[in-house]
Amino acid sequence: MTAAMTLPLSNTAFDSSDWGRQMQSFVAELFPICRSITGDGLRETLRRIAQRVPLQIHEVPSGTPVLDWTVPKEWNIREAWVKDSSGRRVIDFALCNLHVVNYSVPVRRSMSLAELRPHLYTLPDRPDWVPYRTSYYKESWGFCLEHRVLEALPEGDYEVCIDSTLRDGHLSYGELLLPGTCPDEVLISCHVCHPSLCNDNLSGIAVAAALAQQMLAVPRRLTYRFLFVPGTIGAITWLALHENEARYIRHGLVLAGVGDAAPLAYKKSRQGSAEIDRVMEVVLRESAKPFVIKEFSPYGYDERQYCSPGFNLAVGRLSRSAHGEFPEYHTSGDNLNFVQAASLDASLRVCSEALSVLENNRRYSNLSPKGEPQLGKRGLYRAIGGSDEPAKIELAMLWTLNLSDGRHSLLEIATRSGIAFSAIAEAARLLSKHGLLREETDASDSPAINASREEF
Amino acid sequence: MTAAMTLPLSNTAFDSSDWGRQMQSFVAELFPICRSITGDGLRETLRRIAQRVPLQIHEVPSGTPVLDWTVPKEWNIREAWVKDSSGRRVIDFALCNLHVVNYSVPVRRSMSLAELRPHLYTLPDRPDWVPYRTSYYKESWGFCLEHRVLEALPEGDYEVCIDSTLRDGHLSYGELLLPGTCPDEVLISCHVCHPSLCNDNLSGIAVAAALAQQMLAVPRRLTYRFLFVPGTIGAITWLALHENEARYIRHGLVLAGVGDAAPLAYKKSRQGSAEIDRVMEVVLRESAKPFVIKEFSPYGYDERQYCSPGFNLAVGRLSRSAHGEFPEYHTSGDNLNFVQAASLDASLRVCSEALSVLENNRRYSNLSPKGEPQLGKRGLYRAIGGSDEPAKIELAMLWTLNLSDGRHSLLEIATRSGIAFSAIAEAARLLSKHGLLREETDASDSPAINASREEF
Amino acid sequence: MTAAMTLPLSNTAFDSSDWGRQMQSFVAELFPICRSITGDGLRETLRRIAQRVPLQIHEVPSGTPVLDWTVPKEWNIREAWVKDSSGRRVIDFALCNLHVVNYSVPVRRSMSLAELRPHLYTLPDRPDWVPYRTSYYKESWGFCLEHRVLEALPEGDYEVCIDSTLRDGHLSYGELLLPGTCPDEVLISCHVCHPSLCNDNLSGIAVAAALAQQMLAVPRRLTYRFLFVPGTIGAITWLALHENEARYIRHGLVLAGVGDAAPLAYKKSRQGSAEIDRVMEVVLRESAKPFVIKEFSPYGYDERQYCSPGFNLAVGRLSRSAHGEFPEYHTSGDNLNFVQAASLDASLRVCSEALSVLENNRRYSNLSPKGEPQLGKRGLYRAIGGSDEPAKIELAMLWTLNLSDGRHSLLEIATRSGIAFSAIAEAARLLSKHGLLREETDASDSPAINASREEF
Repeated sequence: MTAAMTLPLSNTAFDSSDWGRQMQSFVAELFPICRSITGDGLRETLRRIAQRVPLQIHEVPSGTPVLDWTVPKEWNIREAWVKDSSGRRVIDFALCNLHVVNYSVPVRRSMSLAELRPHLYTLPDRPDWVPYRTSYYKESWGFCLEHRVLEALPEGDYEVCIDSTLRDGHLSYGELLLPGTCPDEVLISCHVCHPSLCNDNLSGIAVAAALAQQMLAVPRRLTYRFLFVPGTIGAITWLALHENEARYIRHGLVLAGVGDAAPLAYKKSRQGSAEIDRVMEVVLRESAKPFVIKEFSPYGYDERQYCSPGFNLAVGRLSRSAHGEFPEYHTSGDNLNFVQAASLDASLRVCSEALSVLENNRRYSNLSPKGEPQLGKRGLYRAIGGSDEPAKIELAMLWTLNLSDGRHSLLEIATRSGIAFSAIAEAARLLSKHGLLREETDASDSPAINASREEF
Repeated sequence: MTAAMTLPLSNTAFDSSDWGRQMQSFVAELFPICRSITGDGLRETLRRIAQRVPLQIHEVPSGTPVLDWTVPKEWNIREAWVKDSSGRRVIDFALCNLHVVNYSVPVRRSMSLAELRPHLYTLPDRPDWVPYRTSYYKESWGFCLEHRVLEALPEGDYEVCIDSTLRDGHLSYGELLLPGTCPDEVLISCHVCHPSLCNDNLSGIAVAAALAQQMLAVPRRLTYRFLFVPGTIGAITWLALHENEARYIRHGLVLAGVGDAAPLAYKKSRQGSAEIDRVMEVVLRESAKPFVIKEFSPYGYDERQYCSPGFNLAVGRLSRSAHGEFPEYHTSGDNLNFVQAASLDASLRVCSEALSVLENNRRYSNLSPKGEPQLGKRGLYRAIGGSDEPAKIELAMLWTLNLSDGRHSLLEIATRSGIAFSAIAEAARLLSKHGLLREETDASDSPAINASREEF
Repeated sequence: MTAAMTLPLSNTAFDSSDWGRQMQSFVAELFPICRSITGDGLRETLRRIAQRVPLQIHEVPSGTPVLDWTVPKEWNIREAWVKDSSGRRVIDFALCNLHVVNYSVPVRRSMSLAELRPHLYTLPDRPDWVPYRTSYYKESWGFCLEHRVLEALPEGDYEVCIDSTLRDGHLSYGELLLPGTCPDEVLISCHVCHPSLCNDNLSGIAVAAALAQQMLAVPRRLTYRFLFVPGTIGAITWLALHENEARYIRHGLVLAGVGDAAPLAYKKSRQGSAEIDRVMEVVLRESAKPFVIKEFSPYGYDERQYCSPGFNLAVGRLSRSAHGEFPEYHTSGDNLNFVQAASLDASLRVCSEALSVLENNRRYSNLSPKGEPQLGKRGLYRAIGGSDEPAKIELAMLWTLNLSDGRHSLLEIATRSGIAFSAIAEAARLLSKHGLLREETDASDSPAINASREEF
């Protein structure tokens, strides 16, 4: 427990190693792989993450019932192209894996442009970008291409090839459990199923992997569970197979779209005032950068599953630009230029700071609750009185003593006082050292708020 | 129950028949009648309403004790005038029934202008309008006239005649009960005691009668009680004689002053967050027209009685310009020109929409609450993924599934999601049809809110 | 009980005697005395207060353990000066008692300017003002002087004399208990330890003494306890010796810095919505002058002690400029010119009004709760109906009847209605007289709010 107090309150310990550039190069490394919700591209991605942190890779057979869903057949693809009558490849998966509709069934035949057209997806408003489309749950096939290219296609016959397989196999996902001294868990989850799209969600993968590397290196009070799962079906599969483990998840973050230049945006959990919701608000405010707080909604990434009413976990989401809010979303515009080392780095710092607050957020009881204890005789207060203002740490101690009635957590004290959490935590450390505070052993940060949480 | 789901979610079913003009012509028909809190003008008014809906007309004898009050003697009037020394009628009830102070006792004698003056009421600031004055509970007499006319009266003797009677008789009121499949009641109440004043309250009478006509024509889950009562004493009389029935009133609206050009204004019930209060807020917001929400106050129309602490019914009030807020209030300026068909029509639409929300507001439990159910396999979700935005109905289904934990009503889901109630209700219908939702049978729209209501 | 209703609702009864000038002259009378947290200056100050109200002066021996503290040795001083080599007094306590660091131990010797310098305190930014400094709990000595004077001191030897004593003795404080018909107490507390500083806190002393004079002269429902105590150690001493009595304190005000020209500022108690907090907000709003409401913080004056978590009393603070917020704070600039009769007077009026609200704040039950009672037959309502607006007292009666369900206090009715507390109290008086209200005997002003208070 006291060991956990040594977790740095800011991630300055990690500053020197240039996390931003490291994450950006990981994004670049993963970019060319053709991922999907199953298959070898997904497996290869998990293997690359496992080179950085000791990830366990799990394989769940096709056909396994998972909640209201079924694990689908495994999809793999070797090549896909459309050739014109001269034999020139007018669309080629080898150049960009977005060109094929993800989960397309195999096809190999000639057809007229008129027959082909219903299988072609473009963005008329963005004629130079290739859209990203999927057909996971309906057997179908198609190509995505630049609208500009489509318009230049002459009438005539085309040879179409999608050399894919859709067979019983497995759904793969990665998991890393970092035990702490306490069984309460923090879930960090990101989706790993999108092909060559950088912000959505190689950015989330890179930040989650870096955060896991950092947490591996420090003593932990809480237990951390990192999930690298295909979107929707992966989260549903994990939940279906781990209903009991899910009960230990006390806080969670979905990381998605954290690499672009937009301000950080935290989307609250369904609970709305869970500890993670209040932590993220404090950490973002203390970051002194622009940020956005959004209310929960049941659309988005895997918070949809974690916050379904049957689980109702305290899982929020950290993003920058959100799904559908930026033109590059789900297009070839979401490429290596769209993600910046500095954005990845700042996203990582906020996550790291949030985990630090969760680690250090406790409730205490003032052992000298009647009147103020005499801080001066313990060397905790200036000797010469009369000057204008108390030192910042003196004020932090007064707030901590005043509100430490066994009910208010340090997070609540920081919020109510407007003083940085780190200063409140330092005050609690000093006061504990002088025997003025006793830590409450009940783990919950706020009995009153927790009670209302149950009722949500 | 399912029958009730067929109640149209908007009143488009009623659009074709030009309710606005119909209501305006009813206002014109009732305008000339000299109404009071008792008497033949009141009876005649109720008879005209009864020509449109199967109204029951009740007669309560003078002297009946009703709560802290007593049903007064019945007042009737044949004629009333003031003649100058030349025999010319300078004031004449036959021209405008506002000229006599309502409930004036009979008088027939000559007097000087000086003697007459204390019995004359004018509006010095509005010299061309006749004020409306009453003296129900103190035996008195008087005339109301244009200030301009008063100033022109020469000194001299005048002959004064009020040919009225104030005798034991009855207080009349009209009532229409439209039973539904459920005994919970919706009260629609309006005052019917004012003489030739259009907005206050022939407008309320016309809208209430039209609403009753509409509700007669549709299947009903809830039971509807329409009251056409003289102001204050009528509501008190009904409450005194129906204390037990009043317990079934779960929602209510007083309709008063709903025909002028001002924006609609909803005044909350004393409870302040009753279902009707939240319904009216949602319906007015969805109307996409300017509107006002006012907190409860114990002054106004018959909501004063329904919201007295011994009843504390969930009865709000819909008005446009409120009592005392417009210069025409309680004067001859509140005439046929002051009330507009379009305003009457829009008031009716909002009422109709509110009843539709009350009919369709239920609570459901998601039968697949762990993770999202797979909507796609049920044909409820697009097959090709990746495009920017979910369809509106998809979003409505996700919200409805996420919050249908047996505690949130559809109204609460509409409010929290910002999605129109009609779309949420349609989503609930679709999801129920596919076995994904089960309706909760407990009638209350929100157990948590209802609990706090008891405590108000 | 009914006697208490005769307490004037505004302090007009006291207007004639020019309290402002009387308080200002009391400030001037006390100004020259050298006060500290113990000693003869403090005793002399209490004696002067006792000439105005029947104050009990208590003496607590040095060494008495009080909560986490110990009553210190008693400090007294005869003279203190620094002479230059020519024998001229360059600093002289006789001219201004701020010149010596309060609680300086005795010293008598020659030293160089270099040796003397660490014992000299100045304000470089305000070179003409003498700062106020203390060293209560660390044996030390020093002088405070104008920075301008310090800069003019030539090098050379100086003779230094502080003729003080620091010996076992007593801590003195003054107390006045004014019993009411009910044991619930109102605490009025001010600090009396500062030497020649006017706003901080001769202003608080003068207002508290005047308020005590006023309360002596009127019948009281509540019991009033006035404390004139040295800051921090005095409040701690009183709390340590009166833990049981402290349980009777239901409301309290610390008065500090109430004489300058800044708007009145009320700092809420730690409870945050205690009755005193709501009373002060209503009274300041009704004063129709600018004012400020501040949230509780654990820094400030003796509310720090009364609001420590082991007591958590409903004690707020009334001030104008607060500690550290004005340049004159804790300097010779806080002199007789800084405090104004009009400010003292307005501070007194607000206190007086607040006590009047506390005296008259009750809960009632409407004895005719079903419908409105017929006010007209009791002569409480206009006989001629139809005019625009009800009289103010009619509206106050309607609100009081509507919310008097045994749960809402008059204060809550005033707050919700926006009507002045005095009008609501007058309405309650009229309605009680006519048998329409019954006072609830349970003393608490709001059962719901009190319940949540326990949980704070």
